[in-house]
Amino acid sequence: MPLWKVYHPTNAFTDVDKQELAEKITNVYEGVPIPKFYAVVIFEEVTSGNCFVGGVRHDKFIRFKVDQIARTLPGPVIREWWMRTLDEVIAPFVKERGFDWEISIDETPFDLWSLQGELPPPFESIAEKRWVAENKASPYTYQEKLPAGHFLLTPGVTG
Amino acid sequence: MPLWKVYHPTNAFTDVDKQELAEKITNVYEGVPIPKFYAVVIFEEVTSGNCFVGGVRHDKFIRFKVDQIARTLPGPVIREWWMRTLDEVIAPFVKERGFDWEISIDETPFDLWSLQGELPPPFESIAEKRWVAENKASPYTYQEKLPAGHFLLTPGVTG
Amino acid sequence: MPLWKVYHPTNAFTDVDKQELAEKITNVYEGVPIPKFYAVVIFEEVTSGNCFVGGVRHDKFIRFKVDQIARTLPGPVIREWWMRTLDEVIAPFVKERGFDWEISIDETPFDLWSLQGELPPPFESIAEKRWVAENKASPYTYQEKLPAGHFLLTPGVTG
Repeated sequence: MPLWKVYHPTNAFTDVDKQELAEKITNVYEGVPIPKFYAVVIFEEVTSGNCFVGGVRHDKFIRFKVDQIARTLPGPVIREWWMRTLDEVIAPFVKERGFDWEISIDETPFDLWSLQGELPPPFESIAEKRWVAENKASPYTYQEKLPAGHFLLTPGVTG
Repeated sequence: MPLWKVYHPTNAFTDVDKQELAEKITNVYEGVPIPKFYAVVIFEEVTSGNCFVGGVRHDKFIRFKVDQIARTLPGPVIREWWMRTLDEVIAPFVKERGFDWEISIDETPFDLWSLQGELPPPFESIAEKRWVAENKASPYTYQEKLPAGHFLLTPGVTG
Repeated sequence: MPLWKVYHPTNAFTDVDKQELAEKITNVYEGVPIPKFYAVVIFEEVTSGNCFVGGVRHDKFIRFKVDQIARTLPGPVIREWWMRTLDEVIAPFVKERGFDWEISIDETPFDLWSLQGELPPPFESIAEKRWVAENKASPYTYQEKLPAGHFLLTPGVTG
């Protein structure tokens, strides 16, 4: 679901750095919770002379471009909190190493997405809960598309 | 219009594979129909150690990221059918070769798009029909922006 | 804010070309106005045999893929004008050199974006004006989030 593209200068990160950053990003999504394997991080080297910021060549710039599919963040408070959370995750890999950086997130359609040939189950459904537990995509029944938690069928009734 | 980015491990595909996959993808869009040349496929190698799934390094993962511009898929039935159609197209190139994979589609604004300096003509217009036939972008008149098929100017009248 | 990805064949552009194109793109956004450093251009080489247009291998094709974050272009007239403006900027780098090309723009959420760990200030706010002047991101106060120009607090009153 989230696809993170990390455009970075040559040698910005070691293999260990990449592993650690990918894990920390994954942890954030796992906490939502969503299945861990939804989080994909791809590192892409931008060789010297191919990145420009404000019209000026910039060889110490890291650009994070994220597509989020499984969840639309609801409301301004959660959206701001989310950005600040991600900023904390990436800070040790950029700010504290002397890079400039930028991150932006797009929210793409939930229903135009598939994994291992399976259309992912609805948010917080029984099937999604099972995918979280098994940490892999697998076929699911119609029954498993129902919400995992307690739910009411009578509109307007709460509590 | 559709821009397909295929992020794949080194040596996942031969030149012949790439040609075949690009053709099969193009055929799906041609069947809509839209001009064949709208379909662009770019293969991008992700070298070993640069892809992580669920926080774990994964060197056998293929990620398809698609931007669709010319058409917004209407309604849940067509959207699901569309994903299943694409899954069938890519299966022989991923599933049957032992790769894990994921595909997601974004729908980007129709009116922020141009080809060879031309703003593409409206859906199913006379000009689009000509572009399909000629398989290339070219200037078109205001008259050609009208629908290619039979159309009624009286709202509310059908049949 | 705008992130321009330029997918181009090997050797399509010299270092001087890249510099010039990045500057010209930046100038367009600077004229909006928005802070110059919002404009990021990344050139990405697509090696021979990895780009297909209409199912046919095409090694003379340049694809511009743009994410615009800070501004949503309002209304059809401005949106068309914007595309024509960008087409003029890129023409000398594509059309006049014998390449085929295509450009598309996505508009991604303003509130899921940060720069140097700062959430960018509102459009045309006092802070944004300061960012334009200083050409870099920095912390800003709540007060600076107000509009930079003259504004009225009474809805429905104009002039």
